[in-house]
Amino acid sequence: LGYLGVYYKRNPKAFLRYLPQAEREELLAQLRDSYRVIILNYFVDDSGLNQRIDDFVNTIFFADIPVAQIVETHMELMDEFAKQLKLEGRSEEILLDYRLTLIDTIAHLCEMYRRSVPRES
Amino acid sequence: LGYLGVYYKRNPKAFLRYLPQAEREELLAQLRDSYRVIILNYFVDDSGLNQRIDDFVNTIFFADIPVAQIVETHMELMDEFAKQLKLEGRSEEILLDYRLTLIDTIAHLCEMYRRSVPRES
Repeated sequence: LGYLGVYYKRNPKAFLRYLPQAEREELLAQLRDSYRVIILNYFVDDSGLNQRIDDFVNTIFFADIPVAQIVETHMELMDEFAKQLKLEGRSEEILLDYRLTLIDTIAHLCEMYRRSVPRES
Repeated sequence: LGYLGVYYKRNPKAFLRYLPQAEREELLAQLRDSYRVIILNYFVDDSGLNQRIDDFVNTIFFADIPVAQIVETHMELMDEFAKQLKLEGRSEEILLDYRLTLIDTIAHLCEMYRRSVPRES
């Protein structure tokens, strides 16, 4: 698939930065929820995980969301988890493992963008 | 910059998969060396680090190298470091920190691809 050059049609009206404030916040909240589900299911047996990551990456692609936003979403979630683990007196080591989830997610997104770059100039 | 849509001219003749075997291996070896330097300097004060990452990402972009190749390069290097640390009886904890380097590198590359996708269909 990757070598054939797949061009996805994107509608700029759906880009995050062109959305009205309310829709923008809704989309970001939806992304946070989706990413949380991905994180929480990453190390458990979940047959739907790949589909979840694909859906998440698709949404980001079509909304032309910068990668920094995903990294930020990840950091916010990790901060939240760190507080919870601390309250429960548990080790925060698991948070380092979740970096693999972020790597996997960004790698998926990167490949989607790569396939969408025109092959010839 | 990101919002203006920057289109980089790429020459398919420079794509990794179209290179003769010898040149391909040379490019991969060069990438391994560059990535090693990035990793080893990531947590030290290095004013040239950003430029190094940009150069690395540029090379990958113009050679249209799949992200999986970078992840593989990272894993190979971590395996090598793990063996070395084990020999020296030192903790492998630092290897978890290097995941941040990989995240940063892939995020850079992802943004470069994102900027190169045509804005309108």
